[in-house]
Amino acid sequence: MEQHQDDSKIKNNLSNIKHKIIVLSGKGGVGKSTVSANLALSLSEKGYNVGLLDGDLHGPSIPKILGIEDKRPGAAETGIAPVLASPKLKVMSMAFLIQDKDSPVIWRGPLKMGALRQFIGDVSWGDLDYLIIDLPPGTGDEPLSIAQLIPDSDGAVVVTTPQDVALVSVRKSINFVKKMNMPVIGIIENMSGFKCPHCNKAIDIFKTGGGKKASMDFKIPFLGDIPIDPEIVKTGDSGEGFTKNNEKSDAAKSFEKIVVNIEKIVNEKKVK
Amino acid sequence: MEQHQDDSKIKNNLSNIKHKIIVLSGKGGVGKSTVSANLALSLSEKGYNVGLLDGDLHGPSIPKILGIEDKRPGAAETGIAPVLASPKLKVMSMAFLIQDKDSPVIWRGPLKMGALRQFIGDVSWGDLDYLIIDLPPGTGDEPLSIAQLIPDSDGAVVVTTPQDVALVSVRKSINFVKKMNMPVIGIIENMSGFKCPHCNKAIDIFKTGGGKKASMDFKIPFLGDIPIDPEIVKTGDSGEGFTKNNEKSDAAKSFEKIVVNIEKIVNEKKVK
Repeated sequence: MEQHQDDSKIKNNLSNIKHKIIVLSGKGGVGKSTVSANLALSLSEKGYNVGLLDGDLHGPSIPKILGIEDKRPGAAETGIAPVLASPKLKVMSMAFLIQDKDSPVIWRGPLKMGALRQFIGDVSWGDLDYLIIDLPPGTGDEPLSIAQLIPDSDGAVVVTTPQDVALVSVRKSINFVKKMNMPVIGIIENMSGFKCPHCNKAIDIFKTGGGKKASMDFKIPFLGDIPIDPEIVKTGDSGEGFTKNNEKSDAAKSFEKIVVNIEKIVNEKKVK
Repeated sequence: MEQHQDDSKIKNNLSNIKHKIIVLSGKGGVGKSTVSANLALSLSEKGYNVGLLDGDLHGPSIPKILGIEDKRPGAAETGIAPVLASPKLKVMSMAFLIQDKDSPVIWRGPLKMGALRQFIGDVSWGDLDYLIIDLPPGTGDEPLSIAQLIPDSDGAVVVTTPQDVALVSVRKSINFVKKMNMPVIGIIENMSGFKCPHCNKAIDIFKTGGGKKASMDFKIPFLGDIPIDPEIVKTGDSGEGFTKNNEKSDAAKSFEKIVVNIEKIVNEKKVK
C-alpha cells in the first residue's frame, strides 16, 4: 500500500460523510454511470445530502447524464467547491476541468492517482449522508487507488449486464473487491430483459438472470434488475434524471426498489 | 516518449506483418471486442494469415468470444507460441495466462506496459497479413503503451454506439488517435437500430446515426453500421463466430461490408 502525507487530510475531509458507496463494474457499457447518477439523484430527492464523485477520468459521463456539463467547480474556503446538480446533490468530475470536451485525458497511472486524491481530499464535500463514487470499469489504477484512498467505505455496488461475457468480468470485480477487503453491498443486473414497445412481447437481447446467479454463487445480496428502456438512453442524453420523469415505468419501479435495498443494507451495517 | 532496449526486438518481431490495425473505443461495452474478433475471423476466412492481440488486460474477452478460453499458449523457438483459434488465426490474450478465470488482474500502469511489450515482442506472430489489436476502452495506460510500442500501424478503427453519451467518448478517442500521430481508418457504429423479432417493427434503443455524424464532423471514413442482433450476444457467449453462422442476417451483411471497406482502405494506404 502506498502511503502519503495527504492521507490524514483525506480522512479529515471525508470525516463528515455518513455513507460512502463505491459503484463499479467489470466491463464498461453496462450502465454503471447511469446507475450511479440515478442512485445519487434518488437519494437526494428523498431528502439526503448527497455527493457524487465521477472517478472515470478518461470517459467522465456523469455531468452529461445530469445535464450539468457546462458548469464549473468554484472555490470554497476549505478547497474546491463541487458543482451543485440540485440543492442536495454535489458533483465532481474531470469533465468540469477539461476546456475542450472533445479532448482526451491521456494520463498514465500516477497522474490519475493524483487527480483522484484531489477529488477526494481537496473538494469540500462537507456534511453528507451519502457519497457515491462512480469508478471506471475494470480492476486497474483507478479502482485500486480509490480502494486505497477510501479504506472505510460502506462497500461496493457491482453493476453488470446479464450475458455470459459480461459475467466473466463481474466475477473478477467481486474478487477484486474482496482482495481489497472492501465489503460488497450487492449486485445490480442492468439491461435485464426488454419488451417491444410496439407488440409488448419479451425480446431476449442480453438474456436475463446472470446477475442473480453470480450473487448466489458468491453469496452476496442481489439488489435488483433493471430492464432495458429506451427512455433511460434518452434521459441520459438529454440530462434529465430518468426515474423522476418516468415514475410509472418498470425500470423506474425496479430502480426505486434497488435504492431502498441499498439504504437498508448500509444502514444495518453502520448500526452494528 | 519512453525508450527501451527491447524496442528493436519488437520492431524485428513485427517485421513480417503487412497490416497492423488497432481497434479502440472511447467507452466500454460498445462491442469493440466482438467487432475485433469477428473482423479477425472474417479476414482469416478470406484466406489471410491473421493475428489477434487482446490488449484488454483487466477484462480479456476475446478467448471467450472465440470459444478458446481453455487453451494455453505454447513455447516456440522464437518465443511464446500464440493460441490457434483456427489454422489461419493466431490469438494472444491475458485470459490464457490467468490460472483462475475469476481472478482479477490488479495491476498498475508500468506492469501493464511490460505485459503488452511481451505480447508484442515475445509472441511469435510470424508472417501475418493482418494483426488486429483489440485495445481496452479509454485513453489511459494501455492505449498509450500500444501507440508507443507500435508507431507504424496502419491506423485505428474506432467503434462506437449511436447515443450522445457514447459519442462524447468517441470524439475523445479520435483526438487521442490524432495526438498519437496514428492514422484513422474509420468509424464503425455498433448497436445501430433494432427490429423486433416478433412484429418486425423498428425500435429505437440507442438511436442511430451518431457514428456517421462524428465521421463527417472529423472528416474520417464511415466504415458502416451494425444493427443490434441477439444472435451476436448468443454467439459471443457460446464461442462461435457470429458472421459465419448468420450469413443472411442484416448484421452479418453489414459486417461483411465493413471488412471490405477496411481491406480497401489499408491496402490503398500501403500502395502510396
